[in-house]
Amino acid sequence: MVVPERISGVLSPVVTPFKDDLSPDPHRLVQHCRWLLSQNVGLAPFGTTSEGNSLSVEEKMSLLDGLIDAGIDTARLMPGTGHCALADTVKLTNYAVKLGCAGTLMLPPFYYKDVSDDGLYASFAEVIDRVGSSELRIYLYHIPPIAQVGISPPLVERLAKTFPETVVGIKDSSGDWNNTNAFLQLDLDDFRVFAGSESFLLQNMRAGGAGCISATANVNPAAINQLYADWQSNVADDMQQGLDKVREIIEKFPMIPALKATIAEFSDDPQWAIVRPPLVALSDDQRSELLKDLHQTAFELPSLTD
Amino acid sequence: MVVPERISGVLSPVVTPFKDDLSPDPHRLVQHCRWLLSQNVGLAPFGTTSEGNSLSVEEKMSLLDGLIDAGIDTARLMPGTGHCALADTVKLTNYAVKLGCAGTLMLPPFYYKDVSDDGLYASFAEVIDRVGSSELRIYLYHIPPIAQVGISPPLVERLAKTFPETVVGIKDSSGDWNNTNAFLQLDLDDFRVFAGSESFLLQNMRAGGAGCISATANVNPAAINQLYADWQSNVADDMQQGLDKVREIIEKFPMIPALKATIAEFSDDPQWAIVRPPLVALSDDQRSELLKDLHQTAFELPSLTD
Repeated sequence: MVVPERISGVLSPVVTPFKDDLSPDPHRLVQHCRWLLSQNVGLAPFGTTSEGNSLSVEEKMSLLDGLIDAGIDTARLMPGTGHCALADTVKLTNYAVKLGCAGTLMLPPFYYKDVSDDGLYASFAEVIDRVGSSELRIYLYHIPPIAQVGISPPLVERLAKTFPETVVGIKDSSGDWNNTNAFLQLDLDDFRVFAGSESFLLQNMRAGGAGCISATANVNPAAINQLYADWQSNVADDMQQGLDKVREIIEKFPMIPALKATIAEFSDDPQWAIVRPPLVALSDDQRSELLKDLHQTAFELPSLTD
Repeated sequence: MVVPERISGVLSPVVTPFKDDLSPDPHRLVQHCRWLLSQNVGLAPFGTTSEGNSLSVEEKMSLLDGLIDAGIDTARLMPGTGHCALADTVKLTNYAVKLGCAGTLMLPPFYYKDVSDDGLYASFAEVIDRVGSSELRIYLYHIPPIAQVGISPPLVERLAKTFPETVVGIKDSSGDWNNTNAFLQLDLDDFRVFAGSESFLLQNMRAGGAGCISATANVNPAAINQLYADWQSNVADDMQQGLDKVREIIEKFPMIPALKATIAEFSDDPQWAIVRPPLVALSDDQRSELLKDLHQTAFELPSLTD
């Protein structure tokens, strides 16, 4: 096995396409992943934006199989593998490692609230112990607005110092720059801090961050990656503003249905608009407004069927 | 198949015993369930108190098998079957129905926050449609302090009116009597409203409720059931006060570890104290304080190995 390189850059928490019967659509997923890679964006399937928490372990394993069978580069894959149940997290993480994924993005167990750092530490440590592989690379996933259960800087430090070759990074979706900065300030060697949104990409790069893993990279990957590549250029602030404008339009709507409606439009494929309950698709009015606003910006989405 | 009777009375969200390797212990679970039944308390395994959300679907199926094989009465079984992923909820609910469980206690999908009633309705409706059994009886599980995603009275009404033979009750763990009362006031036929704690048992019975499903019924079942049976007697208020006193002692500590420490003590079986991460067992000091306080009350727990 190849020892996985630590990941940096822009990744997309890949949206999961569904069929009419709400089963995942492996064919469209591969198509979308290929397009994202062609835009130089890495793949973080089964994240929040992927409706990953509305998928069973078996569904995710099957979709991963589909990606590998289609020849998707495992060096660009950081699937979400954190579940509420220890056994589920271990099973899926183990599978991702066996397939050669360069990393896994790991939520803490998120059902029980007000749990202690000791309890969360024990949970991650159990997973690491049970997977028991030198190829495992964990990027912690801190998203308190949704998971409610967060991963504090002291806990990150403890995990990364105890498992320096395994716990190698974090995605911060707190939406709080001070918190991201706290992760960046930890005394850790080559620890990769990803902003959870491109809104913080430039700030993160200037402070020594590794990139971002952002929902909107599903529809605006090239421009986001451009800022990542050119963050030291003298037009970086303008580029950040351009990204912010596009994001602002999409953020007026529920994010996941809005991304799917956008992909459905630009790929001329209405099936893409399907979401799994408990989410609901945009109404016709919302959809019209979103697309009108998107078409009026400089935003240009290449045909997703490329 | 026998058409399941609607459930009433006191149920215990049965704590799940674990072995040293953190795997569920089917033998001790059967033992505890038998004891609870002998105290006239029904069984709601895989609830919040059961660390149900730290168990995989497969682990729950296997534990259910163990209960059935041991001859536990399916008429007293209301396992928790709600997961984040539609496929998981369908699989486990289907299994519980096939085994003949009288009901299932169903969380809404709880990862995505700020979801609409329409989205939650669609989720429950999909489960009902996919299980597709006239033997399915769903008791909705409203526990906003932990799941964060709640089930509003209008949503309850819509579900129960659309599926009157299937959506037959609710457990309200909001801790808010006004909310429980709102469920009781819904214009529904024979809809079973369970308080989520015995603190509200008398109030619930006086207002037409069906009983309670309470964590502390794991250690204080007989007394709680006594109030359920005698709620119309002239000592009912005193009985409620007695229950409140015991609960108050336990609530000074993290509930699940405290219940397990209590069972470990009274059954003289230290293994019972094991919890799964992200929970942590009581410290020695906490444990001593809890047991001292319990022994000083009138609280008497029969030997759990009876």
